[in-house]
Amino acid sequence: MWRSHLARSLQQHLSQPEAKFLHLATVGHDQRPRNRTVVFRGFLENGDRFSTPLTDCLKIVTDIRSQKAMQIAENPWAEASWYFTKTRSQFRISGKLLLIDHDCQDLELQTARLETWQALSDPARIQFSWAHPREPRVHFPKTEPPAADAPLASFCLVLLEPCEVDRLELRGTPQNRWIYWRDDQGNWLEKEVNP
Amino acid sequence: MWRSHLARSLQQHLSQPEAKFLHLATVGHDQRPRNRTVVFRGFLENGDRFSTPLTDCLKIVTDIRSQKAMQIAENPWAEASWYFTKTRSQFRISGKLLLIDHDCQDLELQTARLETWQALSDPARIQFSWAHPREPRVHFPKTEPPAADAPLASFCLVLLEPCEVDRLELRGTPQNRWIYWRDDQGNWLEKEVNP
Repeated sequence: MWRSHLARSLQQHLSQPEAKFLHLATVGHDQRPRNRTVVFRGFLENGDRFSTPLTDCLKIVTDIRSQKAMQIAENPWAEASWYFTKTRSQFRISGKLLLIDHDCQDLELQTARLETWQALSDPARIQFSWAHPREPRVHFPKTEPPAADAPLASFCLVLLEPCEVDRLELRGTPQNRWIYWRDDQGNWLEKEVNP
Repeated sequence: MWRSHLARSLQQHLSQPEAKFLHLATVGHDQRPRNRTVVFRGFLENGDRFSTPLTDCLKIVTDIRSQKAMQIAENPWAEASWYFTKTRSQFRISGKLLLIDHDCQDLELQTARLETWQALSDPARIQFSWAHPREPRVHFPKTEPPAADAPLASFCLVLLEPCEVDRLELRGTPQNRWIYWRDDQGNWLEKEVNP
């Protein structure tokens, strides 16, 4: 399945922190695509046992004041493009985004939000205390990092629940490519396709 | 202007071929975003002197049989997300895509298509002779590379003409970010914004 191949690529890039950077596309209010670099924060653990099951979800984080938070509310569809330099593998992961903010009433999701906040570094957490993103630049006073056990209100966990994955291995002539998709029962199927 | 910063990032990554890989988002027929890794093939030269001027265009290539060729026909808007590991710089380049295929009647654009084909390596050119992308995998017979002076009919040049660029420099606490956009006269303006 695609997750074992992704795990292998991640394993082979442990020495390269930027291997966890993927590129997340959404659609804006104006029907134009938006695309930005985000950091992979691991897979959601035990999501398939939640009262509303969530399967194979990738975790990222965002600021509720960012444009993508608004874009997700209007159109939750996303595609991540992720390239690994050593293995020369590309993963395109398509699915719906779920934004879990300060006001989310679901206890399981709110716990996942708290745990993701706790796992961040101080420099990552402090970004959520900064002035409003994309507004005219203001002076940033030196501040203490926020508490590790209480997420700031601006902090959101975002889950990408995949429904289709396109894996391209550039190694080899010709290259090798597979499509994976979930059926109605939630099982992953795969087929090999031309690159 | 953003191009000088992009040029500097490219210059500092000459030893890393994958620094030329950017992630291009488009919107599909189903209004879902699509995102994939593409190779930057340089800027279009002298495009501003074409009979229909084209300014600051990034060149990429694609196969007319690929899904993105169809997506561009329906919705030409795109955003490229491009991250440079050494400089820790992110460029988000938003604009319209122009697809120049085998049938394009514009002589200047057709010349640009030919020159881009000529600049490709044999392994890059041979991909345009492969079987239909994304269809069930077939056997690929060994073939000679196509002629360097006659682009295959499947080969397209794609131009991304930027109208807005978002530059984020991760170095520093806080980070630094600028927005660049083109006014009605085609001049680039810029403002510094909060990261």
